[in-house]
Amino acid sequence: MATSSSSYEIEQLQKGCYYEWMGLQAKHIANLKEALMSQQSYENDHKLVGVIVNDFQKYAEKRRELSHRSCSSYFAPSWNSSLENGLLWMGGCRPSSFIRVIYALCGSQIETQISQYLHKIDGNEKVDGLMSELTATQLAKINELHIKVIEKEDKISKKSASMQEDVADMPIAVTAYAKDLVEAGVVVEDALDKHEEGMAVLMEEADKLRVETLRKIVEVVTPVQAAEFLLAGKRLHVSLHEWGRVREERRFGCARADAVAGGAGAGTSNKTTC
Amino acid sequence: MATSSSSYEIEQLQKGCYYEWMGLQAKHIANLKEALMSQQSYENDHKLVGVIVNDFQKYAEKRRELSHRSCSSYFAPSWNSSLENGLLWMGGCRPSSFIRVIYALCGSQIETQISQYLHKIDGNEKVDGLMSELTATQLAKINELHIKVIEKEDKISKKSASMQEDVADMPIAVTAYAKDLVEAGVVVEDALDKHEEGMAVLMEEADKLRVETLRKIVEVVTPVQAAEFLLAGKRLHVSLHEWGRVREERRFGCARADAVAGGAGAGTSNKTTC
Repeated sequence: MATSSSSYEIEQLQKGCYYEWMGLQAKHIANLKEALMSQQSYENDHKLVGVIVNDFQKYAEKRRELSHRSCSSYFAPSWNSSLENGLLWMGGCRPSSFIRVIYALCGSQIETQISQYLHKIDGNEKVDGLMSELTATQLAKINELHIKVIEKEDKISKKSASMQEDVADMPIAVTAYAKDLVEAGVVVEDALDKHEEGMAVLMEEADKLRVETLRKIVEVVTPVQAAEFLLAGKRLHVSLHEWGRVREERRFGCARADAVAGGAGAGTSNKTTC
Repeated sequence: MATSSSSYEIEQLQKGCYYEWMGLQAKHIANLKEALMSQQSYENDHKLVGVIVNDFQKYAEKRRELSHRSCSSYFAPSWNSSLENGLLWMGGCRPSSFIRVIYALCGSQIETQISQYLHKIDGNEKVDGLMSELTATQLAKINELHIKVIEKEDKISKKSASMQEDVADMPIAVTAYAKDLVEAGVVVEDALDKHEEGMAVLMEEADKLRVETLRKIVEVVTPVQAAEFLLAGKRLHVSLHEWGRVREERRFGCARADAVAGGAGAGTSNKTTC
C-alpha cells in the first residue's frame, strides 16, 4: 500500500500520464491525417498504424503501473467531465465501441455514396470511401470479433459487480454495523486496500482487452482502412473530452461567473457572455 | 433540455438533495438503534421500517425529477470520494449488495454465537443474534430474491453498455471524424442530450430496483430483523462515505498542505501533522 504522500504524487503522475497521452493523440491525429491525404505507400501506412498501436500498449502499461499503486481515481478521473465519466467502463472506453466506430464509418460512407449516386454529384468534399470498401469476409471477421469482445467485456463486468458486492460483506459491512465510530480501523483499511488492488487488476484486464481489440481490428482491415479507423477513434475520444468540458463549462461556468458578479441570481445568466 | 443557468441550479439541487438524504439517514440510524435497544413492540418496529422504506422511495422520486433535467453528474458525483464513485452502479449502490449485507450479518452472528458457545462466554458486548435466527424458509426466499435481483441488474447493465456503445456510432462518431473543429454543433449536442436523457431513464429503473429490493427484503424478514438490516445498510453507506473521504484527505490533504507550505517537496510530508 502506498503512503499518503506518494499517493498524492501518484495522482499527479496519473494526470500527467493522461495529458501526455492526449498530447500524443494530437500528434497521431496529425500523422494519420497526413497519411490519408497524401495517399502514401502500403508500407508507410502499415508502419504508422503499428507505431500507433504500440503507443497505445505503452500507455496501457504506464496506467497499469500507476493504477496498481492507487486505482480508485481511474474510475472517475478528476480530469474528465461528468459526461466522459458517465461513459467510462473499467476506467476507459468500451473495447466494443471501437467496432461501433467501424460500423459508423461504413454506414456514413455508404450513405454518402448512395446520395452522390442519386444526385449524380461528385463534389469536392466527398468522404473517402475506404471503410465502405470492407469486403464481406472482413465484415464477417469484424462481426465475429464484436461478439467475442462483448462476451469478454461481460466477464470483466461480472467480476467487477462481484467485487462491488463484496464490499457489502465481511469485514467491511460488519465493522460499519458493529460500531458507531466512523474510524475505519486496520481491518477495514486493509479490506479497502485489497478492494482497490482488485479493481486495479480488473482495469489491467480491461486495458489488455482494449489493446487486443485494436490489434485484431488492424489485422483484419487494410493499413489505409486501419489509419482511417484510428483517426476516427482518436478524434472521437478527443472530441468527447472537449465537448464534455465545454458542456460543463457552459452549464456551470456562466452560472458561477454570474453568481460571483450578481449574487445568487444565477437563473438570469446569459450564455452569450461566456 | 435545461438551459445552462438552470443546469447549474439543478446540480446544486442534486447536491442539496443528497445531503438532505444523508441527514435523514443519520436520523434513521438513531431511530433504528433506539428501537433495537429498547426492544419495542412488533407494531412500532413495523411502523418505523415502513416509514424508512417510504423515505427511500421519496428520495428516489426526488432523484428522478432532478436526474431527468441533468443526469451525468449522478454517475460520478462531486460529493463522493473516488472510492465511493468506484463502487457506484447506475448512480447508486447495487441492489444485490442489500442482500449481501444480510448474509454478512447472518455469518458474523453465527460466528459470534459459535465463538461464545466454544468459549462459554456470554459477554456484555455480544452482537444481537437476530439475523442468525432467519428460518430456512426466509433464507430460501432471500436467496431467490438475490438471483432475481442480479438478473435485473444484468439487464440494466446491458442497456447501459448498449447506450455507451451508441455514442461511438452516428451521428457523434461521424461528426467527430468529419471535421477538425472541436465545436460539437446542434446535431451532436442533441445526440448527447438524448444520451443523457436515456441514462436518466436507466438510473430511474435502477432506483426502482433498489426500492423494490428493499421492500421485498422487509416483507420476508420480521420487523425487528428488518430494523437490524436497515441499520446495517445505512451504517455501511454512511461509513463508506466517511471512510472514502478520510482516505482521500489523508492521501491528498496532507500532501497538498505540505506542497503549499514547503514547495514541491510533497514526498516528505508527514501523516501525523494532519
